[in-house]
Amino acid sequence: MRFTTEQRLNDGVVERGFTLDEIPGILWTPASASPSAPVPLILLGHPPLGLRTMYPRLVARARRAAADGFAAATIELPGSGDRPRWPALDQARADLRRAMAAGDRVDDGIVDALILPLVDKAVPETQAALDALLALPEIGGPVGYSGGVISIGIRLAVVEPRIVAAGLFAGSFVPRAMFEEARQVTVPLHVLLQWDDEGNDRQAALDLFDAFGSAEKTLQATMGGHTGVPPYAGEGAGRFFARHLS
Amino acid sequence: MRFTTEQRLNDGVVERGFTLDEIPGILWTPASASPSAPVPLILLGHPPLGLRTMYPRLVARARRAAADGFAAATIELPGSGDRPRWPALDQARADLRRAMAAGDRVDDGIVDALILPLVDKAVPETQAALDALLALPEIGGPVGYSGGVISIGIRLAVVEPRIVAAGLFAGSFVPRAMFEEARQVTVPLHVLLQWDDEGNDRQAALDLFDAFGSAEKTLQATMGGHTGVPPYAGEGAGRFFARHLS
Repeated sequence: MRFTTEQRLNDGVVERGFTLDEIPGILWTPASASPSAPVPLILLGHPPLGLRTMYPRLVARARRAAADGFAAATIELPGSGDRPRWPALDQARADLRRAMAAGDRVDDGIVDALILPLVDKAVPETQAALDALLALPEIGGPVGYSGGVISIGIRLAVVEPRIVAAGLFAGSFVPRAMFEEARQVTVPLHVLLQWDDEGNDRQAALDLFDAFGSAEKTLQATMGGHTGVPPYAGEGAGRFFARHLS
Repeated sequence: MRFTTEQRLNDGVVERGFTLDEIPGILWTPASASPSAPVPLILLGHPPLGLRTMYPRLVARARRAAADGFAAATIELPGSGDRPRWPALDQARADLRRAMAAGDRVDDGIVDALILPLVDKAVPETQAALDALLALPEIGGPVGYSGGVISIGIRLAVVEPRIVAAGLFAGSFVPRAMFEEARQVTVPLHVLLQWDDEGNDRQAALDLFDAFGSAEKTLQATMGGHTGVPPYAGEGAGRFFARHLS
């Protein structure tokens, strides 16, 4: 892991850009983080739109995490942002857009082709980032996963024992196969659902919530459309992590 | 309104029993409440099991409200507790128990017979209590409604303009007619649903949430069965009232 940039935000949060095996990422640490007082970590998930596009929303989430005393980190998804194009992903994305534009029901094949390879590739990359991040003296643990792509969060929650809590955003297509994996999730979950998200299959999100094996799981459904998560819902997710990572 | 008992709880909350037109009730006020600093009020709804049975849960909710600076009050439902028996209600309740014990689907007629008369009678009684409570110099406003019976909360939210926010518990049978009234609700809503509440029709609760006309509505679904609402869900409801009544 090689740090490439560093800046201190006005609330004292230190933002560092890094690369790890040529994957760009960003780490935010609260002013309080030090080798003598290492802090828990929240991995920030995001849709495959590129870190640059997602930056404003990511930094807002990182600042909220820092206010609770947590570091936050994210890495670029395969095929996104400055990483090499991934033709199969571009194709699957184009197929999805075409189906949605035509108003067709998006068939399972398109969803599987888009999401499953992304999960298969992003999860081990995230685990490698986790190795590097947890090796930093100012980062301790435990670790939480926050956000979408929800299927990446599900797989990580199943295979990565260092993740002790997950706050998931039910705002993306979910391959059928992930419902089986969801049954294997046992960590505490906080699932955000935008009830009036027109691009999202609400019933699938409810079925997925039902499938999760976790004894502690919360569904918080609010209004405001896909990107209109109200501030109080973000605060609810923040308190979930404060309960489980502090 | 005639106060019948008064005691100061160990956190400084003043609990007063009262009767109003022979209906017993309880009012809790935080230590801070005074004629020069009147406080908002939360009306505490509860199932028709009698105030004495419900007291431990009611006083816990009242103390949480008081910690946020709010008064809380509740009155006995018609046909419950120390109020005169109401044979039609007893009959409807017996019919419901029989259907549930037999494992039958509870038919709409039974639900209507149990809930609709209760709503018709309890809502004006609650409004009369509200008149008396708001006439006390230490109670100001605004007013919130919290809890079940959810149909009482729906009707109150529609007909009572002094109620500015409602935290509803989706844990009871809802007559079909109430879905139409739900569309007329416009105040901010926070709906608690116990996802694994075996005695509750989850799909009906989700349909009801969908029906509410409010622009701000939140569904918080948690695990733990009908009476096992986790503490953090109660806190979520508390913050909802803090946002809207403070």
